[in-house]
Amino acid sequence: MASKITPRAKDYSQWYLDIIKIADLAENSEVRGCMVIKPYGYAIWENMKSVLDEKFKETGHSNAYFPIFIPKSLFEAEEKNAEGFAKECAVVTHYRLKSDPDNKGKLIVDPEAKLTEELVVRPTSEAIIWSTYKKWIQSYRDLPLLINQWANVVRWEMRTRLFLRTAEFLWQEGHTAHATKAEAIAEAEQMNNVYADFSQDYLAMPVIKGLKSESERFAGADETYCIEAMMQDGKALQAGTSHFLGQNFAKAFDVKFANKEGKEDYVWATSWGVSTRLMGALIMTHSDDLGLVLPPKIAPIHVAIVPIYKTDEQRAQIGEKVDEIIAALKKKQIIVKYDDDDQKRPGWKFAEYEAKGVPVRIAIGPRDLENNQVEVARRDTQAKTSVSIDGLADYVEDLLAEIQVNLLSRAELFRKENMREVDTYDAFKEQLEKKGGFFLVHWDGTSETEEKIKAETKATIRCLPLEMEKEPGVCMVTGKPSKQRVIMAKAY
Amino acid sequence: MASKITPRAKDYSQWYLDIIKIADLAENSEVRGCMVIKPYGYAIWENMKSVLDEKFKETGHSNAYFPIFIPKSLFEAEEKNAEGFAKECAVVTHYRLKSDPDNKGKLIVDPEAKLTEELVVRPTSEAIIWSTYKKWIQSYRDLPLLINQWANVVRWEMRTRLFLRTAEFLWQEGHTAHATKAEAIAEAEQMNNVYADFSQDYLAMPVIKGLKSESERFAGADETYCIEAMMQDGKALQAGTSHFLGQNFAKAFDVKFANKEGKEDYVWATSWGVSTRLMGALIMTHSDDLGLVLPPKIAPIHVAIVPIYKTDEQRAQIGEKVDEIIAALKKKQIIVKYDDDDQKRPGWKFAEYEAKGVPVRIAIGPRDLENNQVEVARRDTQAKTSVSIDGLADYVEDLLAEIQVNLLSRAELFRKENMREVDTYDAFKEQLEKKGGFFLVHWDGTSETEEKIKAETKATIRCLPLEMEKEPGVCMVTGKPSKQRVIMAKAY
Repeated sequence: MASKITPRAKDYSQWYLDIIKIADLAENSEVRGCMVIKPYGYAIWENMKSVLDEKFKETGHSNAYFPIFIPKSLFEAEEKNAEGFAKECAVVTHYRLKSDPDNKGKLIVDPEAKLTEELVVRPTSEAIIWSTYKKWIQSYRDLPLLINQWANVVRWEMRTRLFLRTAEFLWQEGHTAHATKAEAIAEAEQMNNVYADFSQDYLAMPVIKGLKSESERFAGADETYCIEAMMQDGKALQAGTSHFLGQNFAKAFDVKFANKEGKEDYVWATSWGVSTRLMGALIMTHSDDLGLVLPPKIAPIHVAIVPIYKTDEQRAQIGEKVDEIIAALKKKQIIVKYDDDDQKRPGWKFAEYEAKGVPVRIAIGPRDLENNQVEVARRDTQAKTSVSIDGLADYVEDLLAEIQVNLLSRAELFRKENMREVDTYDAFKEQLEKKGGFFLVHWDGTSETEEKIKAETKATIRCLPLEMEKEPGVCMVTGKPSKQRVIMAKAY
Repeated sequence: MASKITPRAKDYSQWYLDIIKIADLAENSEVRGCMVIKPYGYAIWENMKSVLDEKFKETGHSNAYFPIFIPKSLFEAEEKNAEGFAKECAVVTHYRLKSDPDNKGKLIVDPEAKLTEELVVRPTSEAIIWSTYKKWIQSYRDLPLLINQWANVVRWEMRTRLFLRTAEFLWQEGHTAHATKAEAIAEAEQMNNVYADFSQDYLAMPVIKGLKSESERFAGADETYCIEAMMQDGKALQAGTSHFLGQNFAKAFDVKFANKEGKEDYVWATSWGVSTRLMGALIMTHSDDLGLVLPPKIAPIHVAIVPIYKTDEQRAQIGEKVDEIIAALKKKQIIVKYDDDDQKRPGWKFAEYEAKGVPVRIAIGPRDLENNQVEVARRDTQAKTSVSIDGLADYVEDLLAEIQVNLLSRAELFRKENMREVDTYDAFKEQLEKKGGFFLVHWDGTSETEEKIKAETKATIRCLPLEMEKEPGVCMVTGKPSKQRVIMAKAY
């Protein structure tokens, strides 16, 4: 672990990239804006996927798979409702490469293999899915249709940043169809709650559930629910969204159903998604200047065991004892990595597992063996303790649970300390610059005021929080009446 | 289940499509050659994925993710070794759609948003992965590198067929790098064995392990291992391949490593994959004129329970008893669907679960309740038996195991009956036309003879079998010496 990590206090942006590099999570590829997710990073994403997938199935959803390509004409159908949407995208225009007749060894796009209709690599799948649902839905008995898809999507982003904004990213997208408005709204709320619970219970990342303002809504949505998390630099990160789409897509793609009374109506819809962006959120919620910090519930390795020895005999003796320890830990579903690589020093290994965010490290040397104990270090607080080998598995199990709890409360405390209620625009601007964080402010509900604040401060309305007291007041900018405080912050 | 299934004997091709439709597995999309995998079909694929993923991890592989796009120049690097490879592909040339200034509501590709280098949607990922491995591999300590990717890939196929040949399909692709030739060959063999075991143990599909002839090899491979399965119409289906790539990709992408002695050498490689094509293989191995037949180990639903009642009281009484039955079955990890939908008749439900290949169906009526029994029907043989509710869970558990075994032995028997050893070209041609099946024949080892047979009969060398006795002989066409019989057949 020779490479140094830029301290957070010095350059948060660079620190973020350093963490991704040192923890071996991902890297930029040769394709502009597309990342390679490396095995350790992918293992964390797999853990997220597996928990979320189970939650989707528990709430009645099935997985399916729709084509990666969307014919241009389907976007035209959708654009009627969602003007300005998804213009920057990867467009497939041809279907053949051939050898360049003028330059052997070079390939050219065969001009004769031009598609009659261009295909867009999906930036999101509403268009292809709703044009398919039209064939699947005739009557109320075909509803609700509760489908999720795990897929790659592509958006031609100009400025990219590993995990946070990449041209290609991995995500899941739920697309549901319902007979009534109330049922669709309940679904959108339910899935936003699933995301919130997952973030808090697994990622140890507190989130605020809310509604987007009209200008921040997904194009085509009547209402966008979201979860907003506070990063360590005080900026907001939208960690998931769930859209109530009204009848907009049903109308764009002409999807009607006959209700119980035989009357025809357009179908009500939702869509909801989280992506590999969550990896960025996870990093910026817990990690520190020594490297990644992972909540145990999402960590690919729970415990790293490092032997400390001088002789081969000591190494063998420690190895025997460690086998027992591993067996006891495995019984508790604790994932252990025993690193007895002879080519690396213990100190190097300590730094490596620290950098990779392994929640618990156990060191064991000849003296420990004599005393029937090991040294246990927790990643979150850096605290070390000697623990008897008898009952070690119980100790580690409790410690992992404690770390999970501690990470969440630490993040909650940080968020509390950086949540600021201000009533004047001057105070807002001053504190936003000096301290950052989330601001609970009154806003008059107009896009004009929202635009003005954004233009002048770069802060946006993150959400109209759903679970905070709704105390009326007056807009900090215009003095006009406001029904409730909204959350404003600079955002990723 | 109103739609009829074309009998296999009448039109095997149409029967195949009918099964996919009636079992609700997949359908063609609006995008030429791309399919929609419907929830029930996707659930089967998910089961396959989950078993395979576990086997890959048990054999030391990690998952990762590489970009969907491959810059054209990387193909040029690869083409040096693999001429003629992957020309029909989806080519991204632009990155923006915009409103047509001449026709509001229409979108056009923005001519100003032309990529400086075209991007190909991956048909397979050797090029992008090996150009990445170059950065990851410096010394023998970085080896072996054992990585798998679950992904979508695109090949611009002219004639497509659900699951068997689609423009976009889902697959996994393993890409490994090794310090020695022997280790890479062992890896390629190991993964071919993993595929063979999976096919036999889970899909109940017997396969023949073999080597491809030179002309049937993957472009860029020194040796292609494969598993070949016999479909019910006697045709062969290549169900998986595992390639020993030699140092070809290492040379194309200049991937060298320093060995223990500090000497530089090119890295040795393998790649291996199976795809949603396995869904087609599964269908054509077991299914019949009533619908899909699924091996229990891969079925999304093991048992469908259908109540037979006339009054609401009967329905409630049956429901209570069924709750007990379900609880007992769930304890044994048996997945049950209780279908008490009041809108459909029992006969309709019987036909539906038959069509969907659910291995076991249980029917229960008022008379059964009185006698403390149910009617159990197995999908594979259509046999029905009355079984006491006491001990029903044990009975079903055993029955599912028996069905799994029976499907494999039935398929093995079919294959045995359709495996023909012939020694003359005339006999070969006659029996190929009249009976089909797999032919064990002597071949002189030349591409010329192989081409001649293919041109005259449409049969190809499926493989040089690895686990059959190697008895020498003379080529059925040229009379030249042959070291071992090869397997020839018409193929999907």
